[in-house]
Amino acid sequence: MTHRSWVGVDVGGTKVLAVRIGESGAVEQVATRRMPGRTATGEAVEEAVAAAAADVAGDGPPVALGVSAAGLVDAAGERYLFGAHLPWRDVPVRARLEERTGHRVVLDNDANCAAYAELLAGAARGFGSVVLVTIGTGIGGALVLGGRLVRGAHGLAGEFGHMQAVPDGLACECGLSGCWEQYCSGRALERVTRVTLGRHVDGPEVAAMALAGDEVARQAFASIGTWLGVGTAALVSAYDPEVVVVGGGVSAVGELLLAPARAGLRDALQGTAYRPVPDIVPAALGPEAGAIGAALLARDGRP
Amino acid sequence: MTHRSWVGVDVGGTKVLAVRIGESGAVEQVATRRMPGRTATGEAVEEAVAAAAADVAGDGPPVALGVSAAGLVDAAGERYLFGAHLPWRDVPVRARLEERTGHRVVLDNDANCAAYAELLAGAARGFGSVVLVTIGTGIGGALVLGGRLVRGAHGLAGEFGHMQAVPDGLACECGLSGCWEQYCSGRALERVTRVTLGRHVDGPEVAAMALAGDEVARQAFASIGTWLGVGTAALVSAYDPEVVVVGGGVSAVGELLLAPARAGLRDALQGTAYRPVPDIVPAALGPEAGAIGAALLARDGRP
Repeated sequence: MTHRSWVGVDVGGTKVLAVRIGESGAVEQVATRRMPGRTATGEAVEEAVAAAAADVAGDGPPVALGVSAAGLVDAAGERYLFGAHLPWRDVPVRARLEERTGHRVVLDNDANCAAYAELLAGAARGFGSVVLVTIGTGIGGALVLGGRLVRGAHGLAGEFGHMQAVPDGLACECGLSGCWEQYCSGRALERVTRVTLGRHVDGPEVAAMALAGDEVARQAFASIGTWLGVGTAALVSAYDPEVVVVGGGVSAVGELLLAPARAGLRDALQGTAYRPVPDIVPAALGPEAGAIGAALLARDGRP
Repeated sequence: MTHRSWVGVDVGGTKVLAVRIGESGAVEQVATRRMPGRTATGEAVEEAVAAAAADVAGDGPPVALGVSAAGLVDAAGERYLFGAHLPWRDVPVRARLEERTGHRVVLDNDANCAAYAELLAGAARGFGSVVLVTIGTGIGGALVLGGRLVRGAHGLAGEFGHMQAVPDGLACECGLSGCWEQYCSGRALERVTRVTLGRHVDGPEVAAMALAGDEVARQAFASIGTWLGVGTAALVSAYDPEVVVVGGGVSAVGELLLAPARAGLRDALQGTAYRPVPDIVPAALGPEAGAIGAALLARDGRP
């Protein structure tokens, strides 16, 4: 019997991450490419996706290619509508990538992909109702009810990052101001650090500093972690999930982010003396969750 | 065949509203009593509920009594846990009312009741996914997905009123600060009017003034309407519903509230040039929706 494989590519604000999985979902190969930059065209991003997919293709072509993209993807998984961190504007990305790669392509929102992976094989396994928040360049989100993804009437559910956190607050790449992700994201981490140190430090470097015990870096994580808790309180008030799962690259620091988030949730949630407060747990599949989920959605026909 | 009837009682921050319905759901009688005041005990509220139910009981006893209460009701519908505007704190209200009235009692959150009524016989009829916001003394909320109420893991979904709208904002009766209902509710309407006029005017009087063309009253509704739109944008970002239904006593002014809400939604929602924006429509059953829904939930065994 031939070995069958699926490829998943996660397109984020700063990098493209590709994985190849086998029939069981086990990850066989991983590759990362930098995104072509903030002024890139949609075609340049498509080229980067195809190149990353080729990086992990292995011996034979994959059965299908799953693509996970930050931002608004339509309900049918055909078009990328809009996103703060990617250049596509109402573009039939699925068909374009199919043409470019020659593979069958399945397209979905990045947080939906991550949630699907966490549901099948990660921290959300066994839970019926879940709020998933992914923290990378911005914030992605997904909702699970009855063990299934809630996609919304037009496929756009889970866009938590652009809920207003601060009236007339910081300008957001999406065109609005005061969006939650301006206070809780990789960009926010860099901003808080810059304000304190007076110079720019990349997010991964802030994480390394924090893990090494640097107080400024730890305070920066405490700031975005507290905001994570405040926004999570709004989602818990609205949705009352069993558990909140936090993923995305920025969450790799673990408790430096999650401990202040739990405190922020408790401080901003109504009636905590009289109601259960769901736990905030780390995603299990790490920064590869989006790509793995995209490959799993390609394998399972995007349920 | 004997005539069978059900009674529904809606317990709000300022009044208790009772209805009697027949088998078809048609309303046969309505009665209103004032709430015993903000310092009342739980027992005084129970007495008011029983009295309002007796007001509409008609010839024979109802098959069952449905009770709709603003605040946190547990998943089983047994206990009232906590609410900003009612005195009960983790009290087995269902059993206590059953003992006091001698009727079988069904207990649910007020916005769940209103949503159930609007789903069966009002503005939400025929929709699969709905966000319902009720504006009275505070804000109540409910979610419908797949044509059914989403209750949440612990029965507490839909507590939109206590999502944080303004960091370090106005103090809320719930103990937190900056809650959405401090900017969009009957209390908020009175506050905005008081700030402008320098004297207290009751909410219903502000509504009468606005409907008669008074500019100060209209501006007060524009203020809370804009905040309605901003909070609705957060809910639309999170759930992507087909429609948003707005009910509760304060919504009786109609377009004076809903027009600024639609503008506020459009201004605070990400990517509106690239995504469908759901309409905001008035609830069809008016201020009686909660009581009617409680009676319908009693009739249908609280599905």
